[in-house]
Amino acid sequence: MQFLRSGRFWDALAVLPGQRGGSMDTSIVFLHIAVILTTAHLLAELAGKFGMPTVIGELAAGIVLGPSLLGWITPNEIIHLLAEIGLILLLFDVGLDTDVGRLINAGPRAAIVAIGGFVVPFLLGFLLTHYAFGFSMLVSLFIGGTLTATSIGVTVRILRDVGRQNSHEGQIVLGAAVLDDVLGVLLLAVLYEFSVSGEVSLLNVAKVTMFVGVFFFTAPLAAKLISSLIRRLEHVSRVPGVIATTISSLVLAFAWLAHAIGAPELLGGFAAGLALSRRFFLPFGIAIATHPRFSHHIDLSMRPIIELFSPIFFVTVGLSLDLRAVEWQSSFIWTFSLSILFVAIAGKLAGGFMLRREHPLTRTAIGMSMVPRGEVGLVFAGLGQAAGVFGPQVYAGVIIVIAYTTLLAPFWIKSFYKRYGNRPQLFETAGETTVDGSALRPAAE
Amino acid sequence: MQFLRSGRFWDALAVLPGQRGGSMDTSIVFLHIAVILTTAHLLAELAGKFGMPTVIGELAAGIVLGPSLLGWITPNEIIHLLAEIGLILLLFDVGLDTDVGRLINAGPRAAIVAIGGFVVPFLLGFLLTHYAFGFSMLVSLFIGGTLTATSIGVTVRILRDVGRQNSHEGQIVLGAAVLDDVLGVLLLAVLYEFSVSGEVSLLNVAKVTMFVGVFFFTAPLAAKLISSLIRRLEHVSRVPGVIATTISSLVLAFAWLAHAIGAPELLGGFAAGLALSRRFFLPFGIAIATHPRFSHHIDLSMRPIIELFSPIFFVTVGLSLDLRAVEWQSSFIWTFSLSILFVAIAGKLAGGFMLRREHPLTRTAIGMSMVPRGEVGLVFAGLGQAAGVFGPQVYAGVIIVIAYTTLLAPFWIKSFYKRYGNRPQLFETAGETTVDGSALRPAAE
Repeated sequence: MQFLRSGRFWDALAVLPGQRGGSMDTSIVFLHIAVILTTAHLLAELAGKFGMPTVIGELAAGIVLGPSLLGWITPNEIIHLLAEIGLILLLFDVGLDTDVGRLINAGPRAAIVAIGGFVVPFLLGFLLTHYAFGFSMLVSLFIGGTLTATSIGVTVRILRDVGRQNSHEGQIVLGAAVLDDVLGVLLLAVLYEFSVSGEVSLLNVAKVTMFVGVFFFTAPLAAKLISSLIRRLEHVSRVPGVIATTISSLVLAFAWLAHAIGAPELLGGFAAGLALSRRFFLPFGIAIATHPRFSHHIDLSMRPIIELFSPIFFVTVGLSLDLRAVEWQSSFIWTFSLSILFVAIAGKLAGGFMLRREHPLTRTAIGMSMVPRGEVGLVFAGLGQAAGVFGPQVYAGVIIVIAYTTLLAPFWIKSFYKRYGNRPQLFETAGETTVDGSALRPAAE
Repeated sequence: MQFLRSGRFWDALAVLPGQRGGSMDTSIVFLHIAVILTTAHLLAELAGKFGMPTVIGELAAGIVLGPSLLGWITPNEIIHLLAEIGLILLLFDVGLDTDVGRLINAGPRAAIVAIGGFVVPFLLGFLLTHYAFGFSMLVSLFIGGTLTATSIGVTVRILRDVGRQNSHEGQIVLGAAVLDDVLGVLLLAVLYEFSVSGEVSLLNVAKVTMFVGVFFFTAPLAAKLISSLIRRLEHVSRVPGVIATTISSLVLAFAWLAHAIGAPELLGGFAAGLALSRRFFLPFGIAIATHPRFSHHIDLSMRPIIELFSPIFFVTVGLSLDLRAVEWQSSFIWTFSLSILFVAIAGKLAGGFMLRREHPLTRTAIGMSMVPRGEVGLVFAGLGQAAGVFGPQVYAGVIIVIAYTTLLAPFWIKSFYKRYGNRPQLFETAGETTVDGSALRPAAE
């Protein structure tokens, strides 16, 4: 069928001047996207039918389609790009639903959870693997780094799945997960620098920290100003699709900007979402109400786009977990992975338990929600492997921990809320008035 | 800032086992997409404000951002893929709005227009360049081939811009443009085979023609059956995004299938759209009504996705027209390009004028609508250049013709309808009852 292959229109376009010849068969990418979306949706429905968190269905779709089971789909650059857009849009969506005032209120507690859940697993992981397993300094540092991760994607999705996104503890978890992501990027940069040069420049770390801080406080304001221009444009527009194209552009441009200053890209999506949320507060307590009709239009136009891209993200996390590469017979793998698994879980719970003024149930809920390592853990592990720091055994052990925390934490969280979700203690907040814990939009199930 | 670059999460993911290391900076792609979408929208609004067809704004955005002017964006594989999805979704949208009965009714006339507007420019282009300009057989065949193209994307968009998408002549143009695309794929395959081996296997051509025919008559039926499954799924769904993910999957899977049998990918999108249109007729005149609520849901969920992707297609056409590569001082370029430009326009008008029973105004409208060469012409020219058939001079001359027909035809069509659009002759149909020519959905302006 060589003949047929020659009839491809866009293959020919790819050889136009100024372009490198495209080796990728685009129609296969279409098939892969269709298979990813359909499998994810069907397994999510199945999970929902059996009372499981629906995100499990999407993660499982990746496990099934990827190298772990069928090996049909290996994520390439394009799938990764679409997944990344999915994660950025997911954070945009979370930002849209967030009450900025409450998030700022939860800030100090979120910082405690983030820092606690970062330092404890890092130190425990480092000490355990360096002293008990006798790994080198660098290997142990990378293992500790991997254990600091919190999958912001899985965490916010599971909170939404159980309808606790806008709850008291949901706000703390959201803030903590965002901070954890920023800390993760900083640590990754430091570890990488250390693995290459053996030294770390604290000045650089301070610089990036400052940039990120400035970005986080000025970006929502800038996004708000741009969005008021978009609202005016919408009034006079003669071309359909004003919201879909301009708001998507805003989100992607902010993701680029966040990356350019050294922050995680999803921070750009989150900042844009916060700016467009129903009530947006300036630092000095000035509330800028978003026009309700405009809010409604944004939701109507962006929802299908978010729904299209975000499952690709969760499936890609599953695709990147190669469980077949693990030597399940090796006793070392079991000892090693179970030990660091204990650290991985205990370390994040410790972060939640540092909130002395919260009820133990709330602390447990918060700690559990921070457990999934997901995509952020995979990045640490992947970098460790690529830099030659992790051998195949250590890498496999780390992958087991990432898979276990990512795939099982949603189950614990769902059962936890099934059992304790109606206890008044969970809704009681320490030192502030009790607020309505119900979600602004009905949860997925 | 080497330090910052190292902190990129997904770069690290790209080096996971089983994946080739990604050289692409994803955040730059985000910026490019944002710039493409924003520029396209603003220039389209500007075009609309000055009474110009809005598609001109999107094409102009590509000219401005691409090598012709600023040189900011060179379309890479990812931009091309998104553009291709945009074209497929555009044809899906056109299919959704099409009355299948009327399209079949217009079929024989569409076939006359397609074949006439294919054969006349091919023969005239070949004869002119082979005998008057003394080009070799192969070069002249490729020039003739380039002149056969009709940009289905620009053609359907301009009909929509002027609100004539569902008119009598709109249906003929739509059918003719689809057929022309199929003929173009066949011719491209034949020319490619001829340029490589010096021979052409008519058996292969017959095989592919048969496959395409079978696809076109069975695919909408298959899509209809799948869509009724999706409708049932929607009733019991517990996961949001059922329409956005499953209908997008359906469209992409059909695009893959069309490609697999040797047809243009957009035929898959068109077939899926036809199947989901309000009234879908089976071959034996059995009408299957689409559930109105389901239709409404599809429109609501797919519209933002279509609006997001389709501008990327038009901008990419503009990006691919490198007007700076043309040596504007050369007198050969002018003689050559003006000669084939005449053939390009006259040949397509001839196709329209072959409809003896239509009013001359209708014939003119149809002929003019087939003039834009757009993406399909670019593919021929690109393949001619890549195969070493076109030298730089001939290539530049061909690019001028493509640019001219693509960028100016929308203006003629718009002024034509401004002047003659209310003449009753245009609405009179030969040999069938007059039907309401108004668009099902309000036009873009």
